[in-house]
Amino acid sequence: MATKPSIPKGTRDFSPSEVLKRQYIISKIKAQFERFGFQPIETPSFENSDTLMGKYGEEGDRLIFKILDSGDYLSKIDAATLPTMNAKQLTPKISEKALRYDLTVPFARYVVQHQNDIEFPFKRYQIQPVWRADRPQKGRFREFFQCDADVVGSNSLWQEVELIQLYDQVFADLGLHGVTIKMNNRKILSGIAEVIGASEKLIDFTVALDKLDKIGEEGVKKEMLEKGIEPKSLDKVQPLFAFSGNFNEKVAQLSLLLQESEIGMKGIDELTFIGNQIAALGLSAATLELDVTLARGLNYYTGAIFEVAAPKTVSMGSIGGGGRYDDLTGIFGLKNVGGVGISFGLDRIYLVLDELQLFPETVTSSVVALFVNYGETEALYAMKAIKALRAKGIKVDLYPDKVKVGKQFMYADKRQIPYAVIVGESEMAHNQYALKNLITGDQVLVDLETLVQYLEKAS
Amino acid sequence: MATKPSIPKGTRDFSPSEVLKRQYIISKIKAQFERFGFQPIETPSFENSDTLMGKYGEEGDRLIFKILDSGDYLSKIDAATLPTMNAKQLTPKISEKALRYDLTVPFARYVVQHQNDIEFPFKRYQIQPVWRADRPQKGRFREFFQCDADVVGSNSLWQEVELIQLYDQVFADLGLHGVTIKMNNRKILSGIAEVIGASEKLIDFTVALDKLDKIGEEGVKKEMLEKGIEPKSLDKVQPLFAFSGNFNEKVAQLSLLLQESEIGMKGIDELTFIGNQIAALGLSAATLELDVTLARGLNYYTGAIFEVAAPKTVSMGSIGGGGRYDDLTGIFGLKNVGGVGISFGLDRIYLVLDELQLFPETVTSSVVALFVNYGETEALYAMKAIKALRAKGIKVDLYPDKVKVGKQFMYADKRQIPYAVIVGESEMAHNQYALKNLITGDQVLVDLETLVQYLEKAS
Repeated sequence: MATKPSIPKGTRDFSPSEVLKRQYIISKIKAQFERFGFQPIETPSFENSDTLMGKYGEEGDRLIFKILDSGDYLSKIDAATLPTMNAKQLTPKISEKALRYDLTVPFARYVVQHQNDIEFPFKRYQIQPVWRADRPQKGRFREFFQCDADVVGSNSLWQEVELIQLYDQVFADLGLHGVTIKMNNRKILSGIAEVIGASEKLIDFTVALDKLDKIGEEGVKKEMLEKGIEPKSLDKVQPLFAFSGNFNEKVAQLSLLLQESEIGMKGIDELTFIGNQIAALGLSAATLELDVTLARGLNYYTGAIFEVAAPKTVSMGSIGGGGRYDDLTGIFGLKNVGGVGISFGLDRIYLVLDELQLFPETVTSSVVALFVNYGETEALYAMKAIKALRAKGIKVDLYPDKVKVGKQFMYADKRQIPYAVIVGESEMAHNQYALKNLITGDQVLVDLETLVQYLEKAS
Repeated sequence: MATKPSIPKGTRDFSPSEVLKRQYIISKIKAQFERFGFQPIETPSFENSDTLMGKYGEEGDRLIFKILDSGDYLSKIDAATLPTMNAKQLTPKISEKALRYDLTVPFARYVVQHQNDIEFPFKRYQIQPVWRADRPQKGRFREFFQCDADVVGSNSLWQEVELIQLYDQVFADLGLHGVTIKMNNRKILSGIAEVIGASEKLIDFTVALDKLDKIGEEGVKKEMLEKGIEPKSLDKVQPLFAFSGNFNEKVAQLSLLLQESEIGMKGIDELTFIGNQIAALGLSAATLELDVTLARGLNYYTGAIFEVAAPKTVSMGSIGGGGRYDDLTGIFGLKNVGGVGISFGLDRIYLVLDELQLFPETVTSSVVALFVNYGETEALYAMKAIKALRAKGIKVDLYPDKVKVGKQFMYADKRQIPYAVIVGESEMAHNQYALKNLITGDQVLVDLETLVQYLEKAS
């Protein structure tokens, strides 16, 4: 092969330091998931096509990676009809499996398939890769991890309270302060649309409102008028643009607007309950914010809608999101399983932590000391110390070959190993080890016990 | 959808307890990999087809899962030629990506692609799923994890010593004693074949020898004669069937047989070096055994060959294997990159630990205490304690809904939660918590500090 090998577009190799940083984030998320009582499940990377197809709209169907059947898949097809077929017609005949597109549909399938083994409310988390044949671009990949936590089988609003705290604790653990947890409620959006007499225009209305950040108040109003929303409706909606204060104060202002909408006031009750509990419990790293422009997952979410924004000092889209849904498993024939869930955006959280230099240095440090190799006898003497050090959980290594010491030091330097341990005849004779700090150049002669103490501290 | 959903054959859903047990094994393996100085990498789930095809023989090519191209893949093909094609001809025209079949070829591709960023010797580990369109059967799946550690760019035999110790430490950490690390050497097999004048029959010879366990000495000899190996060669080979003693003693006996083979004596030197160092360093959970019948990966391994057998009390195939190779990356145009690696068989180790009941009980325990929900005020009071407990790393949960207490206890029971915490008016008035042991039925009234201490101990 003449050319250097490559990988498919939209996919990534992860180097050791990248894997270690990703594992660091995942381990923090996982630890909090488990403290909050969520239990892990894993599902296969590929599902039967009929499990996935038709669940994500036409665009989704197109972006699902299909797996070619094994064996002579063409033998199932009448050769004469082949030339008349297009790819869309042929695909279902030669592909019966597909790579998972998200974790939600496989989770729904799991719940239905294993319903008799599950205790409801079921709190599950799932951290696995998903695949989408999307056009790759900055920050968008064809293979990426999703980190989801969902509670199904309970309508209690305490779950929303829990999930907000869960977000907060994960970001606190990652040292990422200044995060904003934006919350809205589908019932609030329905209520506003009802109050302004535009219930049938709910989508147009929310799409326009969602752009407030980008096109400002006048832009939003212009778009609403263009979509056929009445000018007098816009007057009613005016308070939306002037909310101020903390979460509970904004909810109070919003409730004035929604007094005449039953569904709107139901939304106000939910927001109030959640806001009160969060105020009583407190948040460490995040702020809870009411954002009536938030409209993600509108054809799916029926209650709370969440979106998490990175600290304002970083320019980055949302780093998490979620919401409450009434019907998770109806698509697989099991009615009345509702729930609420959130997701962490691993790739974006990675970029934010990197930009703010919030990864602890120790995350990517592997070996703390390299034992220099002076030959078989010295290496065996070194190996005995190495074994003792590793038994204490300390990461140490022997340079595998007896080569020039300078080359061994250079290797340590390039691998960013901070210490070298030198064992020659004299050290062996006195049961000692020369510990050299490769940054300062300082060197001390120590016995094994002291060596362990030194390197334990340096790890 | 009328029928219950299902998953593709050969794939698995993992329930919470299964995921936790698998994570337990993986975390032990990972911790030792890192102590031994290995660094993690991750590669994409799918590779360009030309990276994988032709690397695993004809059978392997057949078993690789191919991914259908996106979009109208048929438009690239002349419709008139379609009916004349079979699947083998069509596949490369409609599929340019494939799921990874193992971790070795992607690792080789990674080394070549990133050769300028890598410091050699490069010690990498990789724990990721692989996919094979094999006929599923007991213990053989179409999606399964591989856990590989390799050192490339060093010919030092200290690596073999390290990898044997690594195996030993992982199994010691898992509490799995009585494991046998079988070692052979490709040079020994070549040497034996040379000595008996059957160099050109090396494969026939080793295939027959490999059956010693199953068909016994007479069976092996019969098969060798049938394959055209001379009766007088069999006389020479007689000592092979009568080796006894520990590793070094067996090597000494073998060396008598191989005295006249240069390559054979090179193998003896290697075995001796490794055996001596291991004898000096000691093993905790495993025994090192010379097994001259071991012939795995013969067209790949050039030095040491490893295979790990579970304790004899369990009937199970090998739970690990590996060896030394001269040429990892030649297939991608980079010469002279040799190395040595080992692999852990996650699924089989799982089965062994399960059968021997070696999973610690705590591995699958999730929540240690469930707070009973008596309504909004009590739940908020409970939540404050829950927050304090979780901050200490203790896994606790609030029952989300105010339902009959019996139902809440039943939920705790089914989730195997050992404690319930009961908070009613009286407890709130005295700043207390009633902690109920759900197994014994005992109940104590405690303050928050004592509650933390209790549950910390019980976790």
